[in-house]
Amino acid sequence: MLHLASETDPAWTRRALENLDAILLDHAHCEKKAASTALSLIFRYPERPALMLPLSRLAREELAHFEEVVGVLRGRGLEFRRQRPSPYASKLMEIVRKQEPLRLLDTLLCCAMIEARSCERMQLLGEALGEVGEAGLAKLYRGLLASEARHFNSYVDLARGLGLVSEEALRERLAEVAAHEAAVIAEAPPVARMHN
Amino acid sequence: MLHLASETDPAWTRRALENLDAILLDHAHCEKKAASTALSLIFRYPERPALMLPLSRLAREELAHFEEVVGVLRGRGLEFRRQRPSPYASKLMEIVRKQEPLRLLDTLLCCAMIEARSCERMQLLGEALGEVGEAGLAKLYRGLLASEARHFNSYVDLARGLGLVSEEALRERLAEVAAHEAAVIAEAPPVARMHN
Repeated sequence: MLHLASETDPAWTRRALENLDAILLDHAHCEKKAASTALSLIFRYPERPALMLPLSRLAREELAHFEEVVGVLRGRGLEFRRQRPSPYASKLMEIVRKQEPLRLLDTLLCCAMIEARSCERMQLLGEALGEVGEAGLAKLYRGLLASEARHFNSYVDLARGLGLVSEEALRERLAEVAAHEAAVIAEAPPVARMHN
Repeated sequence: MLHLASETDPAWTRRALENLDAILLDHAHCEKKAASTALSLIFRYPERPALMLPLSRLAREELAHFEEVVGVLRGRGLEFRRQRPSPYASKLMEIVRKQEPLRLLDTLLCCAMIEARSCERMQLLGEALGEVGEAGLAKLYRGLLASEARHFNSYVDLARGLGLVSEEALRERLAEVAAHEAAVIAEAPPVARMHN
């Protein structure tokens, strides 16, 4: 799915269902972090006009999802609150090359893979939640996974639009990032988080 | 207007009209910075549930304005690009007390005053642009100034909602921040920027 190099272990889905509140809290943090990453790229690369509007729209959409998930938490009598950041994104970003413009290319591909993994897991959540009769949450995740798939494509398109490498080289690098992502997720400790 | 402690010198409006491209570029940066400030407050204060949704909505609205102004720049054959940050916001924030929770209270009031000054200047721009026949830009600024006024009120409401000080003390502190803002803007060098 979406170039992921591994499928999520069914144990993840079971753990998620047993710890829905924790998953929802982590999900809210993920949306906030995704908005922040998109906005930070706007700050870092103003000399790349083609990035400005797509990243701004992406950030807005992530913020709208953040608000939606915070609303779901509140509906369950819970509040958004601080939590220790997951090491997933920082470990994933270790594959980013230090020299520009390859740093930007790799960053965009890492962002794409985060969206791809989120998309896969939201699909798993949507299906599993439907089976246990959590119709409202199942609908939420089915709605969101379409956005995540779109965001994956947006990030890959932005990387392609840099015009730095051939289509073949882009696909090769995406496969390398995907393999690294699969290794990072395989090593993550088994706690109930979106990217563990 | 909106508790501002000074009125903008007519020389600012003349300079802005003579340097519309520079003003539009600076305006795009201001919207981006405003979104970033709102998002950074979400990151800094997750234990304040009442801040989360209003700040997220505010950030989304600032990003939509950023996109709008970048579109206007493009319509004029220009691109968004890097520029040296204006010292206005950092000088304004010097009034923020270091100790929480007063740090948060003061930060919100400084954000309110930035919105107030933007609102005043967008009104001046809207009127002046209408007089010189720039109907499209005049309409843009008349539309945006209503948002800025709303954002001023949102920030003051968030500060009030902290429940830290009496209504009288809140108004006193807002007046102090406004006096400081007027001093900062009076000292700014005469270049064509939103807050110079």
